[in-house]
Amino acid sequence: MTASPMLPFDDRGFAYGDGVFETVLLREGEPVLWDYHRARLHRGCEVLGIQTPSDAALDATWQAAEQGEALPQHEVLKIVVTHGSGGRGYAPPPTPAPRLLSHRMPFTPNFSRGYKGVHVCICDLRLAHQPRLAGIKHLNRLENVLARREWQRDDIAEGLLADQQGNLVEATSMNLFWQQDGVVWTPPLEQCGVAGTLREALLSLQLIVVASLPLRELHCVEQLWVGNSVQGIWPVVALVTPDGQVQKRWPLPTNDVFQAAGHRLLGFAS
Amino acid sequence: MTASPMLPFDDRGFAYGDGVFETVLLREGEPVLWDYHRARLHRGCEVLGIQTPSDAALDATWQAAEQGEALPQHEVLKIVVTHGSGGRGYAPPPTPAPRLLSHRMPFTPNFSRGYKGVHVCICDLRLAHQPRLAGIKHLNRLENVLARREWQRDDIAEGLLADQQGNLVEATSMNLFWQQDGVVWTPPLEQCGVAGTLREALLSLQLIVVASLPLRELHCVEQLWVGNSVQGIWPVVALVTPDGQVQKRWPLPTNDVFQAAGHRLLGFAS
Repeated sequence: MTASPMLPFDDRGFAYGDGVFETVLLREGEPVLWDYHRARLHRGCEVLGIQTPSDAALDATWQAAEQGEALPQHEVLKIVVTHGSGGRGYAPPPTPAPRLLSHRMPFTPNFSRGYKGVHVCICDLRLAHQPRLAGIKHLNRLENVLARREWQRDDIAEGLLADQQGNLVEATSMNLFWQQDGVVWTPPLEQCGVAGTLREALLSLQLIVVASLPLRELHCVEQLWVGNSVQGIWPVVALVTPDGQVQKRWPLPTNDVFQAAGHRLLGFAS
Repeated sequence: MTASPMLPFDDRGFAYGDGVFETVLLREGEPVLWDYHRARLHRGCEVLGIQTPSDAALDATWQAAEQGEALPQHEVLKIVVTHGSGGRGYAPPPTPAPRLLSHRMPFTPNFSRGYKGVHVCICDLRLAHQPRLAGIKHLNRLENVLARREWQRDDIAEGLLADQQGNLVEATSMNLFWQQDGVVWTPPLEQCGVAGTLREALLSLQLIVVASLPLRELHCVEQLWVGNSVQGIWPVVALVTPDGQVQKRWPLPTNDVFQAAGHRLLGFAS
């Protein structure tokens, strides 16, 4: 675990959320899905007009961990790139100096949720469509924060988020996957939501297909999962209200091929 | 001018924009429209579930300026209140410790723009409707940042923002006012936009009335202004493209009663 860095008040990441971040799983010091994390960071910087840090600078955020330390099995590395300090109000300075900050934290994957399945609720908050910001992992995350505040129960693992048109988009910090007709699907993210790196990798491998899922059709899906690149893939066994009332159950999948494929990508033992 | 404060990497204002801010004009050390700024800060904290700092703590952000210093005629005070450090991902910690930061900066109001009128353009970016966050001055300001990047010319003072339904909402850092049939109007802000303190004060005094203004009707208004509590009110004399082509001109108002009323509220000499 590295010492937590400090940043100045006039950093645009703090002032306006003018920046992007990545949360990367480190396995024995090696970043998992690193190419996907780096690609999304590049995409986000391009959208915000931030000069992306060099590959060497990005690599240094995790390579620093390797020098002479005992390597924990799992850690989480958070990387933030901001538009740097200053500017006149919302206008960035003429020659901005991007700021790269990173911090490693202890982490233990919650494997038991993968074995036993999780309960999820549906959040009241509806995501707004903003195609100019959709997909990237920018620092403007108040929708996720407000949605996460809608339940307190520890036995609810995630909250599902729909857009204002009533289509499911993601969970508060995970992407969404479901099975229908023997195919695994995930919602489109052109209008809102974060394109998770595990989802990107599953798309590249053609293990999932993009399709819309209206809220009213959630009850009909054969199987549902939430997943991200840090926690892996969790099968959903119940849809509950924020106070825990069960609305719908799914059986725990036996021989979960989809979960196994996701966990191979993350290097988890299956 | 105070030394710029530092903040830790794990502050939720930095991580997610989980906080609110105010930009306050100080005239000879006294905050202008202070009750309105404080009221909006309270409203924002309530929406985000942040315990609002005490009045004494908020007053101390500008009272510190008064002790034995020569007071400049104008300064700007920026106040930020965040949800504090930590938490598990998007979920705030069980007992969050809000963080109050402030910083005074030199400032010279741009009076000449008030006398000569300004040029504005229309931004391509369309504001997303998010009623859960509309009106408050939270730290998720990427829409404003992206919109402000749409023009570079110094002779364009502001960019007008419409929502995805095609109704005008505000300018990137100012509210919008127009005259029609002898009445001054301002757009509703229930779905998006920031409820400026000058606009709030003008509403309280019943000097303006709320109404929608579709983009297509902008050419028909008798007079247009942009304004905020720091810069005052600027009459708009031309609508231009981002590269400066004039699309519509308005005469500079003679005896601008609306501007004079706004400037009295801010204590500017008329």
